[in-house]
Amino acid sequence: MENQKNPYRIYLREDQIPTQYYNLRADMPEPPEPMRLPDGTVAQFEHLAPVFADELVRQELDNETRYVDIPEGIREMYKVYRPSPLCRAYNLEKALGTPAKIYYKFEGNNTSGSHKLNSALAQAYYAHEQGLTTITTETGAGQWGTALSEAAAHYGLNCDVFMVRASYEQKPFRRSVMQTFGAQVTPSPSQETEIGRKMYADEANRSGSLGTAISEAVERALHVPENKGRYQLGSVLNQVVLHQSIIGLESLAAFDELGEYPDVVIGCAGGGSNLGGLIAPFMRDKLTGEKPDTRFIAVEPASCPSLTRGRYAYDFADTGQTCPLVKMYTLGNGFIPSPDHAGGLRYHGMSPIISKLKHDGYLDAVSVKQTDVFAAAEEFAKLETILPAPESAHAICVAMEEARKCAETGEEKVILFGLTGTGYFDMTAYEAFNNGTMVDHVPTDEELERGFATIPAVPGIQDAGGAPVA
Amino acid sequence: MENQKNPYRIYLREDQIPTQYYNLRADMPEPPEPMRLPDGTVAQFEHLAPVFADELVRQELDNETRYVDIPEGIREMYKVYRPSPLCRAYNLEKALGTPAKIYYKFEGNNTSGSHKLNSALAQAYYAHEQGLTTITTETGAGQWGTALSEAAAHYGLNCDVFMVRASYEQKPFRRSVMQTFGAQVTPSPSQETEIGRKMYADEANRSGSLGTAISEAVERALHVPENKGRYQLGSVLNQVVLHQSIIGLESLAAFDELGEYPDVVIGCAGGGSNLGGLIAPFMRDKLTGEKPDTRFIAVEPASCPSLTRGRYAYDFADTGQTCPLVKMYTLGNGFIPSPDHAGGLRYHGMSPIISKLKHDGYLDAVSVKQTDVFAAAEEFAKLETILPAPESAHAICVAMEEARKCAETGEEKVILFGLTGTGYFDMTAYEAFNNGTMVDHVPTDEELERGFATIPAVPGIQDAGGAPVA
Repeated sequence: MENQKNPYRIYLREDQIPTQYYNLRADMPEPPEPMRLPDGTVAQFEHLAPVFADELVRQELDNETRYVDIPEGIREMYKVYRPSPLCRAYNLEKALGTPAKIYYKFEGNNTSGSHKLNSALAQAYYAHEQGLTTITTETGAGQWGTALSEAAAHYGLNCDVFMVRASYEQKPFRRSVMQTFGAQVTPSPSQETEIGRKMYADEANRSGSLGTAISEAVERALHVPENKGRYQLGSVLNQVVLHQSIIGLESLAAFDELGEYPDVVIGCAGGGSNLGGLIAPFMRDKLTGEKPDTRFIAVEPASCPSLTRGRYAYDFADTGQTCPLVKMYTLGNGFIPSPDHAGGLRYHGMSPIISKLKHDGYLDAVSVKQTDVFAAAEEFAKLETILPAPESAHAICVAMEEARKCAETGEEKVILFGLTGTGYFDMTAYEAFNNGTMVDHVPTDEELERGFATIPAVPGIQDAGGAPVA
Repeated sequence: MENQKNPYRIYLREDQIPTQYYNLRADMPEPPEPMRLPDGTVAQFEHLAPVFADELVRQELDNETRYVDIPEGIREMYKVYRPSPLCRAYNLEKALGTPAKIYYKFEGNNTSGSHKLNSALAQAYYAHEQGLTTITTETGAGQWGTALSEAAAHYGLNCDVFMVRASYEQKPFRRSVMQTFGAQVTPSPSQETEIGRKMYADEANRSGSLGTAISEAVERALHVPENKGRYQLGSVLNQVVLHQSIIGLESLAAFDELGEYPDVVIGCAGGGSNLGGLIAPFMRDKLTGEKPDTRFIAVEPASCPSLTRGRYAYDFADTGQTCPLVKMYTLGNGFIPSPDHAGGLRYHGMSPIISKLKHDGYLDAVSVKQTDVFAAAEEFAKLETILPAPESAHAICVAMEEARKCAETGEEKVILFGLTGTGYFDMTAYEAFNNGTMVDHVPTDEELERGFATIPAVPGIQDAGGAPVA
């Protein structure tokens, strides 16, 4: 029965799917900084409700409620593809000759191909409950757009997706999946919004960016007749981290069954939703003193290094500067990663929760080069039969480094990383890696300074560029 | 606890993964017809061993052994991605307003995207145990080639894949996945084999076919130095149905836990390996009289209707006519489905086991048009969060028909169908369906006659065209 005690994969029972989300903010010594309007005042419900569904605004602003009931209408859909497995990477351990135990929580077994569906279902559900007809969003790599298309189809909502034009052209199959689920997919910058037309006019901006696509999606939501449209975002926001806590809660429950607990928790970080969700209950245990020594590592691409080289400042969430200001590690809302950068994780900012935890010393961050990431991805694929998304492979890369260190020191660490999704729509990048045409780009200090210059001044809070006012 | 009793998904524990394959032939009233050489003599071990690995030949020829131990070296890899879930399609049932219970066994949660990995691992394992260095194969839609590439990477074998040229060009990402796993992928017909050069010379044959690719892969295997190469086939053969019995055995174990048993078992049928594996233990129960009333339905495309319109005759497995003769329902080894046909399931023949069961009246077969198949696929995707492979969607289509009938009659049937894989690499076909450019092609009688004309005469057995000798 050795194997049943230590299986390759643990699937919880359906009745072990969490019934509540966990709100990490309630246990943080200091909560993340509040959203602000450009004039520096703190954003309130009435400022956000025109853009986001009411219940989601409440979740966004609520730093107090520790556990939030998951409505049955959401849980019913979670049951269709969850619980996701907690997997033991025996083959990888053997190949690395490490005494470490490597676990990964695999979120890729649904058509969106990633963890994004966890929050998409919640957001679409609340929009539907509010009687809205239309949800809008942006997508880059396409996982979020696919997830929201699926969710919208389920709850009977219209779904307008603005897809970064470069991805729209490079990933026609991603687009097709969204259309198959009934979404309307528009390349961004488009001719259909004011900000889109403005950006499109300058050829330099025509390939698009997440920031621009966000601005277009927000503008579109605000113009849906009878105020029946809202915008939905797949990462960064507190509400999204809340929904994604289901990843960490299931992981913890599986570890409980195994009688294990991770020493290190590793996640890739783009906007921070997967990372925030994965670490949530383990960070709770650290913050409450129950497990004070757990180490947390955010892994980001060297080409878009918000946590490792960005500034902790208030910045716009979008290039169009239409969204409220968020206090986060940011490269500046005008920063656009090099076109050499293949995978996702290309957002200029970072979840305020993750940012605050990093700033206060509870979480480490490292950056990795994409050629190292793809090398790790391929080794992992051969050993574990899963072709990882490039985003997820950032975490694999660092988990392998940690396990190699254990091989040197003999430490029997328990390592957990988040395998957020699959790479079926990223074969162009894999091909570039295999052909040897993939290039690593690390922004120069001058490039970063140009990005920082787009961080706005906020009256009474900070100067332009992000430094606090004296 | 209602839901735990009737969950959306049942995952067996790892120690419930079968330890033995089940050989359905041992319980068939009459075994399938033996392979023959072109002169009509029955193929023996020594005729097949130059082409297939020894243990696989033994499995191919063994109609007696009821249960075959699964070596630990294969089970270790099964544990990495199995057991696969048995899912209850509650959302689909609700949408159809049916009293039927619809279950599907989902085999798509591995990088090959399908059930093919079950046999690929077994075949690569036995090749490795025999000390071989190289395995060769053909692939059309790409699932089998991907699966064998994964398996070869795991056991340290070279893998040469001949990919039907039309697919090679239309599905570059499938090719990239195989290359990522280290396989050498060659478009077929190629310049690298005698039969390839011969086929390539005629422009009409240049887009390739499975039959040609098989011939090339066999030729390549026979030319590996020191006799260290073997050919491996992903369907049709008895050995493959044996390996795929793991699908049915896991399904049965899950039904046991539920206290249910299917009234109808439905599978798509190309070469027949998924269908043969899925039905194996349920057909055993029918043949042994324990569950005499279970109904079995093979679903094939109207554009490649071997079971519903083919002849039960000895035919070559490959266009090059280099393989032994197999008694099966066949459209003739020269039959090539219309280029309008989008999905897989384009093989001219059918598993001898499935063919024999059909011929003897134990199994029904129906054909469906691809536009109906894609309509069913999209409805399913929206309800169940899985984007099905077009192949799998054939089974979905008929399962939905059965469930609709129950809605009319009020029968509370238990329906099981095989969801063999995911459609991430089939978006071109989905797009054609959504654009309204997808065309249904049903071969005319004249087209079928041209195919039948390629069925060879076999001395003492049958005339050319397949009619038994008088």
